[in-house]
Amino acid sequence: MQNAFQTVALIGKYQSPEVAGAVLRLAHFLRERSVAVLIEQATASATGITSEFPVATYEQIGSKADLAVVLGGDGTLLTAARRLASHQVPLAGVNMGRLGFLTDIACEAMLERISEFLAGDFLRDERMMLEVSIERAGERVFNTAVLNDCVINKGESGRMIEFELHVDGEFVYFQRSDGIIISTPTGSTAYAMSANGPILHPKVSGIALVPLCPHALSHRPITVGDDCRIDLFIQPPHDARIHFDGQTRFDARSGDKISVSRSAYRVCLLHPLGHSYFSILREKLHWSASPRLP
Amino acid sequence: MQNAFQTVALIGKYQSPEVAGAVLRLAHFLRERSVAVLIEQATASATGITSEFPVATYEQIGSKADLAVVLGGDGTLLTAARRLASHQVPLAGVNMGRLGFLTDIACEAMLERISEFLAGDFLRDERMMLEVSIERAGERVFNTAVLNDCVINKGESGRMIEFELHVDGEFVYFQRSDGIIISTPTGSTAYAMSANGPILHPKVSGIALVPLCPHALSHRPITVGDDCRIDLFIQPPHDARIHFDGQTRFDARSGDKISVSRSAYRVCLLHPLGHSYFSILREKLHWSASPRLP
Amino acid sequence: MQNAFQTVALIGKYQSPEVAGAVLRLAHFLRERSVAVLIEQATASATGITSEFPVATYEQIGSKADLAVVLGGDGTLLTAARRLASHQVPLAGVNMGRLGFLTDIACEAMLERISEFLAGDFLRDERMMLEVSIERAGERVFNTAVLNDCVINKGESGRMIEFELHVDGEFVYFQRSDGIIISTPTGSTAYAMSANGPILHPKVSGIALVPLCPHALSHRPITVGDDCRIDLFIQPPHDARIHFDGQTRFDARSGDKISVSRSAYRVCLLHPLGHSYFSILREKLHWSASPRLP
Amino acid sequence: MQNAFQTVALIGKYQSPEVAGAVLRLAHFLRERSVAVLIEQATASATGITSEFPVATYEQIGSKADLAVVLGGDGTLLTAARRLASHQVPLAGVNMGRLGFLTDIACEAMLERISEFLAGDFLRDERMMLEVSIERAGERVFNTAVLNDCVINKGESGRMIEFELHVDGEFVYFQRSDGIIISTPTGSTAYAMSANGPILHPKVSGIALVPLCPHALSHRPITVGDDCRIDLFIQPPHDARIHFDGQTRFDARSGDKISVSRSAYRVCLLHPLGHSYFSILREKLHWSASPRLP
Repeated sequence: MQNAFQTVALIGKYQSPEVAGAVLRLAHFLRERSVAVLIEQATASATGITSEFPVATYEQIGSKADLAVVLGGDGTLLTAARRLASHQVPLAGVNMGRLGFLTDIACEAMLERISEFLAGDFLRDERMMLEVSIERAGERVFNTAVLNDCVINKGESGRMIEFELHVDGEFVYFQRSDGIIISTPTGSTAYAMSANGPILHPKVSGIALVPLCPHALSHRPITVGDDCRIDLFIQPPHDARIHFDGQTRFDARSGDKISVSRSAYRVCLLHPLGHSYFSILREKLHWSASPRLP
Repeated sequence: MQNAFQTVALIGKYQSPEVAGAVLRLAHFLRERSVAVLIEQATASATGITSEFPVATYEQIGSKADLAVVLGGDGTLLTAARRLASHQVPLAGVNMGRLGFLTDIACEAMLERISEFLAGDFLRDERMMLEVSIERAGERVFNTAVLNDCVINKGESGRMIEFELHVDGEFVYFQRSDGIIISTPTGSTAYAMSANGPILHPKVSGIALVPLCPHALSHRPITVGDDCRIDLFIQPPHDARIHFDGQTRFDARSGDKISVSRSAYRVCLLHPLGHSYFSILREKLHWSASPRLP
Repeated sequence: MQNAFQTVALIGKYQSPEVAGAVLRLAHFLRERSVAVLIEQATASATGITSEFPVATYEQIGSKADLAVVLGGDGTLLTAARRLASHQVPLAGVNMGRLGFLTDIACEAMLERISEFLAGDFLRDERMMLEVSIERAGERVFNTAVLNDCVINKGESGRMIEFELHVDGEFVYFQRSDGIIISTPTGSTAYAMSANGPILHPKVSGIALVPLCPHALSHRPITVGDDCRIDLFIQPPHDARIHFDGQTRFDARSGDKISVSRSAYRVCLLHPLGHSYFSILREKLHWSASPRLP
Repeated sequence: MQNAFQTVALIGKYQSPEVAGAVLRLAHFLRERSVAVLIEQATASATGITSEFPVATYEQIGSKADLAVVLGGDGTLLTAARRLASHQVPLAGVNMGRLGFLTDIACEAMLERISEFLAGDFLRDERMMLEVSIERAGERVFNTAVLNDCVINKGESGRMIEFELHVDGEFVYFQRSDGIIISTPTGSTAYAMSANGPILHPKVSGIALVPLCPHALSHRPITVGDDCRIDLFIQPPHDARIHFDGQTRFDARSGDKISVSRSAYRVCLLHPLGHSYFSILREKLHWSASPRLP
């Protein structure tokens, strides 16, 4: 029988030699099933797996692999998703510690699940990404895609910032706050949830705007349609530090314009059959699964 | 020039003789422009406008009118929307007091705005409704459509209720609380906002599930896709009182199943050109429109 | 050695025959230690323990007992506290199910703990109560003491209520909401916590005013000094249903004045040595006791 | 008649020449009433008022003045309060812009109010302060007093921090978050309010612990008694940036211990007769003072 995937890339948690065992186990397992294996470059050097299997950059993975398996936590998967965004390689996440929202395959069950994947037994789960670009004096000085969120924070000074927010070119509000989170549904259960943002199921076509410690009590989170363009103007004399998926950052200056809109690319996550978004949410939030005894 | 509407129904605030003046003024204005006018039955008797203009039931308005103008507050418009749901008559709202989210034409500017509407100058704004049905022992005992929300509350006893919530047939959670609000984006700025629910722009395709005083702190609101079916099972020995758009109610018993899904009908609101959702939100929430002086 | 308590009353969960075993076990244990035992009347009839031990009303317990042991949940202890408020009998709580904030002695360890109590090994924990009285047309129509809270809710109609709130005779605000919780620090981890009220350690001298679904977003909870008098005037045409410790209720009418102030009586809870408020809070709120592994 | 104050110091907004007019007007007014006037040093140089009136350091003001009038905003008053903490000089605040919680004398009414103060017509309002000290490897490396709050924030890296919190030597919780605000009742209407902290009336004897974007949803604010000692241990490898009244800061390292307890000093604010805390709160929070028309 034909495997559902011919070339699989393995990506381990950043600078974590301790994933070596799991990566090797999976690599051998795949080779025995006649699947070509690529080890992501940084994973290869952190784990020392360099002789047995071909090593590949994200660029090479993007052009050759038809599945990337990420071994780590949600953070590892976020990086891979951003790096592979334009290549449309589907991603599967094996969590090496606690269950993640994105890395939902338990390490112990890894071989069994990947075996099912090869047999074509999996669920596809497409997630929107956001495209963020920053303009200074009319010129683009930065851009990136994010799967979770773009967080505009107060800058180096540690003081409240002030900004104007526009949606599709229309002024929405002027705000004084510690900043604002612009989040996808995927990001709504990450940092935005700590800031009292709305939980949006991945099927909801929306972008959440979640203020951080707003000066005015009535500045509540709003969710706008995912086809909106959001522009944010940092008011003088404030500067802002912007974080992307909690991983990379950019120091914006007073007067910079930050534009956010839906990315042309989507991330495709693969889940085992029987995967349940609500069951992960329930476990993460300690919701009771069944009536408690009185 | 041809009017954009040939037959216009006028619907006044429930049992409010004080709208009589505005209704009459608008009725004469329309007649002068050769528009056929219908006065809604209850409006006619509350205001005493019965001789000059034909009186019509909601059923007759549904089949004959190509526009219904509501004079009152958001509550009046909600009633009209529910009553006319299956007839697809567009609605315009004239507020007789404070600006409403739905009744956005100021009474003073009524004739000017309606004149523009007749000339074809208006914006169409389609809003989803929810279809709610209640089953008892396998039989449907109640059903209705709502534009804002369906609120499941603790019943007569005033004690916390317990229920199971399922989405598309999948168990989501068991909850002890004072109840839950199931809200459309339109309803997200009404009662749900008081209960700390998410504000959803009307373009967001979502249904908000907002717990009322949940026993467990981690029971936060969730927004699910608007193509979901939500089923809620009232656990023994609890009974629940259910409110629809804050206007009608039904007493559910222990064991009843409440099912909520997107209605086949949508409400079409007409707004003046230049209408802005964000501007209404800003005014209602006292957001500052421009930077305050230091 | 002299026992620290000569006469101990036993009070079981309301209408719960299943506490009979524990009540009897404790009664025999006390008798063997030469402690006089009283069984509370309703407890006696629910459990059928009527022949071996003297039965007593709350009134009699108040005048004769120097300790009352409550076997049940927090609700049972709240009732006993209210009923014995004016008698100053200290209370100890044995939880028959889940750990409670007030009933902190595990049933399995009951005999050991009570034995320590008799030896004088316990902590005293005094809690303030609130005195609530309701005036209609200048006359007092109801009054009671509460240990947790007084909850002013919307009435039978199920519609929002409107009221004015005064503190020490000064107007504070006019509010439209589903109601308001007036809570002691003890009550701050009960219903008020579900309504997003502040958690107040029992040592904080404050009374929390927690709105329920307020119409205006800026109506946040306030905590005022515990020597304040709070007056609440129900505005026409609204009526309100008032709950006391979630156990008794009173239907207030439009125009009624509800006055709340610190009670002259305090409840004295006895805890085992080593009792920790924070440890109970941590367990109830699922706070991690120690750093989680990464 | 004898003035209630013999020596009055004038303190203007930091580096703000625009307060010069008001400072001079008040200085002349006081001199005419035979009151000795001191101009605070930095105020003197920013405004250029150096020849006519004696200039004094905070130290000199502390030992000579029996009233300090602050002209600026709440920030200016916070600085003066901290600088004069150990000297017990009462403070009055004249707001030069918007009404403040602390600077409650309108600039237009300044002379009239101060005249009343001289005549002995004023209210005394004592506020607690917090003493904060930071220990590194057993040695105190920093300490200060605050009137509003001490904010422990994530450090330079911008990543979540982890810390243990102890109250009176007892472990309370381990927390992952963006930080925590430790606030007095005075500070409860400042930054802590933006972070959803409890509003505590100045008469409440409590200290609020308000988490900033806690990782776990159940980490709610707690208010503890104002006689508690709070110790916070920054867990490796995290560092933290600590802000005091939003004005000064200190970079704490992993392993540092931050201790907070009630200061031995209290700030004494003077208010005009008729001053009302609730009226300021109402205005700041846009609470309706009277029933709105339907």
